[in-house]
Amino acid sequence: MKHQPDFAKLAQSSGEWLRGTGPESDIVVSSRIRLARNLADFPFIRRCSDEDRVSIERTVRARMETLDGWDDIRYVDIEDISEIDRQFLVERQLISREIADAEGSRGVALDPAERYSVMVNEEDHLRIQVMNSGLDLHAAWKQIDALDDKLEGEILYAYHSRYGYLTACPTNVGTGLRVSVMLHLPALVITGQIEKVFRSMQRINVTVRGLYGEGSQYTGDFYQVSNQVTLGHSEESLLSLVGDEVVPRIIEYERKARSFLIDQGEQDLNDEVSRALGILSTAKKISSEETMHYLSKVRMGVNLGLIENVQVGTINKLFIHTQPAHLQKLHGRLLSSSDRNIQRASYLQGHLNGKLGDGELN
Amino acid sequence: MKHQPDFAKLAQSSGEWLRGTGPESDIVVSSRIRLARNLADFPFIRRCSDEDRVSIERTVRARMETLDGWDDIRYVDIEDISEIDRQFLVERQLISREIADAEGSRGVALDPAERYSVMVNEEDHLRIQVMNSGLDLHAAWKQIDALDDKLEGEILYAYHSRYGYLTACPTNVGTGLRVSVMLHLPALVITGQIEKVFRSMQRINVTVRGLYGEGSQYTGDFYQVSNQVTLGHSEESLLSLVGDEVVPRIIEYERKARSFLIDQGEQDLNDEVSRALGILSTAKKISSEETMHYLSKVRMGVNLGLIENVQVGTINKLFIHTQPAHLQKLHGRLLSSSDRNIQRASYLQGHLNGKLGDGELN
Repeated sequence: MKHQPDFAKLAQSSGEWLRGTGPESDIVVSSRIRLARNLADFPFIRRCSDEDRVSIERTVRARMETLDGWDDIRYVDIEDISEIDRQFLVERQLISREIADAEGSRGVALDPAERYSVMVNEEDHLRIQVMNSGLDLHAAWKQIDALDDKLEGEILYAYHSRYGYLTACPTNVGTGLRVSVMLHLPALVITGQIEKVFRSMQRINVTVRGLYGEGSQYTGDFYQVSNQVTLGHSEESLLSLVGDEVVPRIIEYERKARSFLIDQGEQDLNDEVSRALGILSTAKKISSEETMHYLSKVRMGVNLGLIENVQVGTINKLFIHTQPAHLQKLHGRLLSSSDRNIQRASYLQGHLNGKLGDGELN
Repeated sequence: MKHQPDFAKLAQSSGEWLRGTGPESDIVVSSRIRLARNLADFPFIRRCSDEDRVSIERTVRARMETLDGWDDIRYVDIEDISEIDRQFLVERQLISREIADAEGSRGVALDPAERYSVMVNEEDHLRIQVMNSGLDLHAAWKQIDALDDKLEGEILYAYHSRYGYLTACPTNVGTGLRVSVMLHLPALVITGQIEKVFRSMQRINVTVRGLYGEGSQYTGDFYQVSNQVTLGHSEESLLSLVGDEVVPRIIEYERKARSFLIDQGEQDLNDEVSRALGILSTAKKISSEETMHYLSKVRMGVNLGLIENVQVGTINKLFIHTQPAHLQKLHGRLLSSSDRNIQRASYLQGHLNGKLGDGELN
């Protein structure tokens, strides 16, 4: 197992899940599954001593090093890296804000494609995550189930014959499963229907969060839809609830809202989308929030065929790579907020200029 | 003397005064002088019968046809042309809104470079105008004085040995001279100093109006500065008041305001100017007001060197050619307001795309 990735190099690449491909990728950015697991021989994290945490991390790392097909995996010692590198991993959706902000021995194992991530000493001893581009929960389930089986061959999990996997928080007990689908819903936002859609979901135990998890703002019109509890539900029923019932329904609403916007005034939509690309291509300084706002419109424009020479994958990447830590890693040093706004504008222009189409020169 | 110009063809060209050259052309768009003259043998316009007006027009046209070096002049019978063509000539600053909206026999003689215009049967029998690019009042004065002398050789003007030229409105009696300089003052607007500057001018008998004369909105940050009265002042003193005292002082204020904006935050200004170009280059529909607003910023950006590959002459032309009648003449038919907004955007893109600079393709 390799150690500490080169963050500066990583900042120039992007994960598989940002490709902008896979089923329903005009609306579904990514499908993510995570499993919460705990070692039977240690207390839950909040009751752990510092020594316990060190032992847990050491044990898990040692076990992971012998796993089949796990050679390319890099292990990041989160305690050891800088604040900016932690922020970088959060922006990249590879670790949670909680583990970044925690203290003590903790880390994450990552594969080069950034499909897998195994956090050690988060809320649970292990948080195993698989993330795919588009709506692809069943593939994600196969992948995470296989990895979980491998790990379970090496590690004795805390498991109760009646309740299932034991977890720090009761809502995760049972399967320890959380199914999350990241949706891009600009038309439901514009038409003012988004709140209604989400209210209807609360009744069926589905939660909605922003791009960066609980409490994060709904920026860029991105919404993560996931199951609220696992206790009393099988993996299959949770996957089916989110992947076969809830998400397809939201996709249908969003498609209808997009059609409505086009019918109401394609020229208006075209104007809004085109100006958004214009501003992103010409601003000399731009905040993260404004960037997300305009990128969201451009993403919808690309998916509706109103913008032709920009790839969805490029836009997906720009959402992540224009975040503060990414910009600073790309630039090679810490930057003030106002310097970031300048660098962000420059980065956007590097990727978007020349995309505005050739007009006649006059 | 040729008759009725081809307006559709005219809509594709532009007058000499829009070149964006001449002294102080970063701030001064044009210098205009007009002389009010009346024929001794007829009553003032408001006392004229319809027959009088016809006679005046016939007399003046006959006299102008024999003038030296006047062969290229086209005479437009304003009564005879469509409402849209009248509007077109107003937008082009070749006739006044008043003569466009009047009734009865009236017209205007124009040269192909659109430097000269002689309105017949406006408020006075003759309104002779010369318009040059940049701050060039003395050249304009020589040109209009020569034309006036030629006309006076053919036409008997109403002249009083004590009061001078007699005019319909007492404020024009004497020289009949109005000196108008069109200034572009975006920095004084942004810094909130414009009202103060104008209040100081009212005390010295100088008036300020918008792009399209009395009562017109101050759009595009354009302001016409002119003398308020002529009675009791010589031509030289009026030219000197506007051209040597007032305008140079306003130019100095505007330059100071531009320096202040750059010192305060060149990146802010650069951002505002660049985004303005971005919006004009990408909007799919845009109102005349919004167009003027952003063109004003781009014009300042070009003059401050923040935008490099756009000519001031191009921007000057776009201010005029994106006006409603111009768009309709260019398009060859009447357009609704919303269709004009679409055509305007398309016209702007035809002239501005490819001006945003090449970014790396990624």
